[in-house]
Amino acid sequence: VSAGGATAETKAAVLCEALPYIRRFSGRVVVVKYGGNALADSVSDSDALGMFAEDIVLLHSIGIHVVVVHGGGPQIGALMERLGKVPEFRDGLRVTDAETLDIARMVLVGKVNRDIVGAINTHGPMAVGLSGEDAGLIRATPRDPALGYVGDITAIDPTILRQLVAEGLIPVVATIGSDTAGQAYNINADTVAGSIAEALGAEKLVFLTDIEGIRSVPADPGSLLSSIGPDEIDALVASGAIGSGMIPKATACARAVRDGVASAHILDGRVRHALLLELFTPEGVGTMVVA
Amino acid sequence: VSAGGATAETKAAVLCEALPYIRRFSGRVVVVKYGGNALADSVSDSDALGMFAEDIVLLHSIGIHVVVVHGGGPQIGALMERLGKVPEFRDGLRVTDAETLDIARMVLVGKVNRDIVGAINTHGPMAVGLSGEDAGLIRATPRDPALGYVGDITAIDPTILRQLVAEGLIPVVATIGSDTAGQAYNINADTVAGSIAEALGAEKLVFLTDIEGIRSVPADPGSLLSSIGPDEIDALVASGAIGSGMIPKATACARAVRDGVASAHILDGRVRHALLLELFTPEGVGTMVVA
Amino acid sequence: VSAGGATAETKAAVLCEALPYIRRFSGRVVVVKYGGNALADSVSDSDALGMFAEDIVLLHSIGIHVVVVHGGGPQIGALMERLGKVPEFRDGLRVTDAETLDIARMVLVGKVNRDIVGAINTHGPMAVGLSGEDAGLIRATPRDPALGYVGDITAIDPTILRQLVAEGLIPVVATIGSDTAGQAYNINADTVAGSIAEALGAEKLVFLTDIEGIRSVPADPGSLLSSIGPDEIDALVASGAIGSGMIPKATACARAVRDGVASAHILDGRVRHALLLELFTPEGVGTMVVA
Amino acid sequence: VSAGGATAETKAAVLCEALPYIRRFSGRVVVVKYGGNALADSVSDSDALGMFAEDIVLLHSIGIHVVVVHGGGPQIGALMERLGKVPEFRDGLRVTDAETLDIARMVLVGKVNRDIVGAINTHGPMAVGLSGEDAGLIRATPRDPALGYVGDITAIDPTILRQLVAEGLIPVVATIGSDTAGQAYNINADTVAGSIAEALGAEKLVFLTDIEGIRSVPADPGSLLSSIGPDEIDALVASGAIGSGMIPKATACARAVRDGVASAHILDGRVRHALLLELFTPEGVGTMVVA
Amino acid sequence: VSAGGATAETKAAVLCEALPYIRRFSGRVVVVKYGGNALADSVSDSDALGMFAEDIVLLHSIGIHVVVVHGGGPQIGALMERLGKVPEFRDGLRVTDAETLDIARMVLVGKVNRDIVGAINTHGPMAVGLSGEDAGLIRATPRDPALGYVGDITAIDPTILRQLVAEGLIPVVATIGSDTAGQAYNINADTVAGSIAEALGAEKLVFLTDIEGIRSVPADPGSLLSSIGPDEIDALVASGAIGSGMIPKATACARAVRDGVASAHILDGRVRHALLLELFTPEGVGTMVVA
Amino acid sequence: VSAGGATAETKAAVLCEALPYIRRFSGRVVVVKYGGNALADSVSDSDALGMFAEDIVLLHSIGIHVVVVHGGGPQIGALMERLGKVPEFRDGLRVTDAETLDIARMVLVGKVNRDIVGAINTHGPMAVGLSGEDAGLIRATPRDPALGYVGDITAIDPTILRQLVAEGLIPVVATIGSDTAGQAYNINADTVAGSIAEALGAEKLVFLTDIEGIRSVPADPGSLLSSIGPDEIDALVASGAIGSGMIPKATACARAVRDGVASAHILDGRVRHALLLELFTPEGVGTMVVA
Repeated sequence: VSAGGATAETKAAVLCEALPYIRRFSGRVVVVKYGGNALADSVSDSDALGMFAEDIVLLHSIGIHVVVVHGGGPQIGALMERLGKVPEFRDGLRVTDAETLDIARMVLVGKVNRDIVGAINTHGPMAVGLSGEDAGLIRATPRDPALGYVGDITAIDPTILRQLVAEGLIPVVATIGSDTAGQAYNINADTVAGSIAEALGAEKLVFLTDIEGIRSVPADPGSLLSSIGPDEIDALVASGAIGSGMIPKATACARAVRDGVASAHILDGRVRHALLLELFTPEGVGTMVVA
Repeated sequence: VSAGGATAETKAAVLCEALPYIRRFSGRVVVVKYGGNALADSVSDSDALGMFAEDIVLLHSIGIHVVVVHGGGPQIGALMERLGKVPEFRDGLRVTDAETLDIARMVLVGKVNRDIVGAINTHGPMAVGLSGEDAGLIRATPRDPALGYVGDITAIDPTILRQLVAEGLIPVVATIGSDTAGQAYNINADTVAGSIAEALGAEKLVFLTDIEGIRSVPADPGSLLSSIGPDEIDALVASGAIGSGMIPKATACARAVRDGVASAHILDGRVRHALLLELFTPEGVGTMVVA
Repeated sequence: VSAGGATAETKAAVLCEALPYIRRFSGRVVVVKYGGNALADSVSDSDALGMFAEDIVLLHSIGIHVVVVHGGGPQIGALMERLGKVPEFRDGLRVTDAETLDIARMVLVGKVNRDIVGAINTHGPMAVGLSGEDAGLIRATPRDPALGYVGDITAIDPTILRQLVAEGLIPVVATIGSDTAGQAYNINADTVAGSIAEALGAEKLVFLTDIEGIRSVPADPGSLLSSIGPDEIDALVASGAIGSGMIPKATACARAVRDGVASAHILDGRVRHALLLELFTPEGVGTMVVA
Repeated sequence: VSAGGATAETKAAVLCEALPYIRRFSGRVVVVKYGGNALADSVSDSDALGMFAEDIVLLHSIGIHVVVVHGGGPQIGALMERLGKVPEFRDGLRVTDAETLDIARMVLVGKVNRDIVGAINTHGPMAVGLSGEDAGLIRATPRDPALGYVGDITAIDPTILRQLVAEGLIPVVATIGSDTAGQAYNINADTVAGSIAEALGAEKLVFLTDIEGIRSVPADPGSLLSSIGPDEIDALVASGAIGSGMIPKATACARAVRDGVASAHILDGRVRHALLLELFTPEGVGTMVVA
Repeated sequence: VSAGGATAETKAAVLCEALPYIRRFSGRVVVVKYGGNALADSVSDSDALGMFAEDIVLLHSIGIHVVVVHGGGPQIGALMERLGKVPEFRDGLRVTDAETLDIARMVLVGKVNRDIVGAINTHGPMAVGLSGEDAGLIRATPRDPALGYVGDITAIDPTILRQLVAEGLIPVVATIGSDTAGQAYNINADTVAGSIAEALGAEKLVFLTDIEGIRSVPADPGSLLSSIGPDEIDALVASGAIGSGMIPKATACARAVRDGVASAHILDGRVRHALLLELFTPEGVGTMVVA
Repeated sequence: VSAGGATAETKAAVLCEALPYIRRFSGRVVVVKYGGNALADSVSDSDALGMFAEDIVLLHSIGIHVVVVHGGGPQIGALMERLGKVPEFRDGLRVTDAETLDIARMVLVGKVNRDIVGAINTHGPMAVGLSGEDAGLIRATPRDPALGYVGDITAIDPTILRQLVAEGLIPVVATIGSDTAGQAYNINADTVAGSIAEALGAEKLVFLTDIEGIRSVPADPGSLLSSIGPDEIDALVASGAIGSGMIPKATACARAVRDGVASAHILDGRVRHALLLELFTPEGVGTMVVA
């Protein structure tokens, strides 16, 4: 896509429309969750990761304090398979023994996190990878002994994130937490993104996924909701209209806006520059959650 | 003009194109000379002043440190006429006796400056009017005894401008200077704009005029120069290709880029949002002067 | 007057007496209203304006944060007359149509304000002229539709004044206010002086006038009051002992000391160096209002 | 070991001896390289890693700015073996193809770095894991096309390290570097430790190894050198007295003290609390290199 | 005593034990009262004063903010005797006429204070002598007209102490107070030490005396109390078990810990390096008072 | 003396004359040497010390950074006599054995210094007594073994003085110096005052004495010099016209103005408020030394 096709008048109109948003968001925190499936696509489509990185860098360049949170489920599964490790599930959750945790940590911190940091840093040395274990960022506790090292968040200490964004850096967070004894836990990345947005008093929480947004009728593409409140999310979850894969995102959005985040968004990461369009045009893309 | 007509793809393309410029100019100084004729038009077309003010506010909103400099020749002439004062010229320069100076000062500081400040401040209390007499901003000396209180600049003290922009304010400067004994002088506004840009180490000096730019052949609209160097300006002035009205602007541009201003621009203020297009698109409008 | 006539002993005694006041007022704000009639005199007696400027500079030089507020009624009338504009009054207030407002603004901002700034700046580049329109300093609303652009103060934002005095500058304020839509209004200068003193938490509010002070019996020079409380002012206004021209000053003094200004003063500006004598000697001159 | 066995007199003597060192090193940077073999031991002897972490925390607690650098050769080999990847060597250096680099990065950043961070953070949330890719910390270039992604350092940007230690945090650095295009490289950890010490102007560079120090006669334990200069190191390397495994450490020490690091140390990490003894007692342990 | 006799293992054990205390006390205030009798000994045993100074300097060197308070009763008596002045006592308190006060002040401020400052400053220019008269440090009122210039503390202004320790200096305080009219008074040094510790929110208040500590049974050395609470002190004073010389120290300790000082200590200054042992070993020496 | 006798016009004239000096000296350092004989007078005439203190406080109150330096020869002699100590002189200099030094130190630091501090602090807690031994203020070396502890200045470290004046305090300096081994020395107070003025880059150095100033002809009161240069001082010393008691003052003045102090003054302290008259009136009193 080249902007050369637009007339001067169109360009001026787009700029007039966008500049007030740019002003409004400058100096504010935007937490972006970059999802496992998007990452899986990025493996096959390196341009997708590159475009994501470009958007992050553009936001950063105009003074937005961006924090990236990521998961990596498919990538963990792939390494387990290579190592001949058979996954075990209970109630849809992966049982995580010590070896599985080691694999998850290597993949999230040593592979996926590194790839995102590397993609951003082709634009300049501004990204810094973090694990939730660093500087007490994510404190966790075991969810259920039967699940092993699957953790729930007990506290977020956003100090290290504040310091890094204050220095003009972009933190990229792998969602491994730890308890005070130093034991690590694997944590749901959607939940972490929401909790970090709350802890930072973020302006926006954005989930980049591979669907268009939330539908009121799952099977009906025409029922896509452009805006929704947290109570409606609760109702859609209760009625089953929001399916299992979307539940952590949708409930993280609902909780975040209830806890002071100005708005939360579920965007279709397959739309080119979806982040820019959502932040800087009045129409937006995907589903926005506001209190 | 509404941006609604642009597709999402076009909007994304314009934004991708514009954001790096926004980054580059944030925190930098841009000095904008708003001309007498543009002002005269504004009297009949209040929307022109309103759109100018809107562009200034948009630049300011994204962190650009804007300083506005203005003249007001036609407005001075109008009040002189109402007061029955007959203008006298020598070599094309208005002879300025004490009463004429008083009139010029009332018009520039008490009328034109106020109108510009007022137009900007409809967007919020961010503009502050200044005369060059304030805080030693413009020190002047008489050009020629025969011309009375017509002054040449001896020194610019940009301290007050730096303080105001540091406080997030937009200085609007009327081009009256003074000597150390407190005597005021009327100074050419184009020259003042250039000297202020130099003193502030501005990123850009922009003249908003009512012509398209500099032409290599005065009578040939097709000879409009989109870019030019200071030496070429000297040559065009020497050859007479740059006419009398344009000389102060053109020579101010040449001197400014020689003295460290990154670029100087002569724009057609009749193009809507010419400032935005010049700053945030690669094509630009009008003539750019670079070293 | 030369101090040479005083003996060393007298000089030491005056200094011992004055230095504690100098200490007490250093770093404090003193708002000085320089009146229309004093200004009218200054036209004929340029030495009066020069001596006023000298006193302001002396106060400034020892660390007092001086803010000057001025009116200019006689000067406005003079220009209206020259332009053939017939004044119209209702209940003693000038009906201010758009053209009258333009004239008032030109005279106050472009003439009177400039003359005061110029007189101060003969001692160094320390004065900066402001209109109440600048940076939201004076927010106004129309008093009465029948009076046109005569305004009442709705809010004072003293930020710009604080910034300028913090930079070692002397703000000189012309009393034009504006509403949020950018419309200008002419405001009573005595009232503005009082409101600014309150907004700044000034140590002193001083009105330099052409009378000796407040008398308890208007016709009796011997009834001059050297000190008075705000309740007594209310009573004298109610009884008619304080006449119409003095009412805005007297009520501004009463309100200011009720709102936290330490003392307010009505001084005879015709006494040479009245400001110095009032601030630095125990006897003072004129009438002091204290809570 | 309990200090209870020491008499009050002995304790006072040890304290008198140690306090001046504590004073001298407070606020100074100490770079500690924790070696691959020590790490391998830690796997079997978790107490070794725990004691290392305890020493690091004690140094940190008294105001020393500690930066930890680590390798992980044995651990990389182990994962390669599990994944059925056959190592290939040229001239003693591992040929590193893309897959090997991915494995190295996962092990170093996602496993070894995490284990060290976790061990320190059992004492409080003070460690932060970093890869040399973060924030441009280690810029690298390929050493030899035949070796694949084995890198040489081209530049160290210690800004992120300075920021973290200024915030009271302990950076733990995995020695992956990157070029400006975002390509990662595996770098020799001894060399990185030395370069970081130089870039930070460290007070001390310490290699914790599994040997006693440098011997002048390799086979003679009695020839252990307690102190040595950089020129002597050059001579011992030239003569072959310093063997291949020790060469990167010894030459990093020599270069560091030549480039402004006050002293470099090769310590026997198997001695309990070797770091404390080296820093806070006059005898020291192992070999010290001084200019 | 040389630390050379300790093995590496013992040294490491002592350091591991001491470093956490060093961390805990760094940046905290410790007020040390150096007593009259210790001073008297110092005259005969200059090494005692030298060792005291060495300990103070060591504490200072590791970031502890040390404030020294001293008395000088025996030294005052000696000069009075030389000047042929006969002491007079009432209820055990010295009657202090103007001449006695002059002598006390000369001895405390001009002799004892100087000797302590000089002993510390042999290690570097870090001590500064103060009298309680300086900068309003100790405000006093006469205790009893019959006693003359014997004062009780009415207020402590610790500002000057905070400024000096913030500059890295060690204040040494002679316990002369003054009233607002400038009259000086001699004040009990134990009481001053306690009040200063309270005013500074000190971590510790330490009395260096010539006894081992507080005994529950005065005549029984085996009844030495290593730890005691303020209520127990009250009881021991009431029962007479704490004798007259110890009462000011013991009650100052009780009051200080009740007013927020973390712990107060009565140490035997004859034990070499008693201060170091008390602060940096778990056993401590003497009697500790905690709330 | 009451200022009430002066007319308003006289007062205004004195103030106009004085305020520019007040401005000029605000924030500048003035070092005042208060002499031994003045002190001796003060004993008999406590009002003299009180008036000196009042002047110091007035200077301080208007932002002048005052540093007081004092001697105390007569007072030292008096205590020696009371203690039956026989003074011994060589070439007019007092031989100072250890006991004499102890006496000098007690008198200067513990008596004279205290009296000056106390007199100032009756106006508020602003004075702080210092000895040159404090914080390395005056480093000294023995002048001549035969003279004992008579010292010459080797270095002035004005850090502690700068800190105290920055905190709004008035340092009062007793002129005892010390060497790095902690040995104290008695130093000529006139020389110390000059050296401190140089080290602080003082605006003025003032000697308050009991004579009118420097005469070109010692016996002729009419030959009093109101102004003199350093070379003339050298000549008058060489010719013997400046007598022995005045030599240290005169040479300190000459050296100070050569080393950057703007002016040095020898004033007659018996003139009431001589300091105020010198600083704030154009005539001055006594002899001024300028480069």
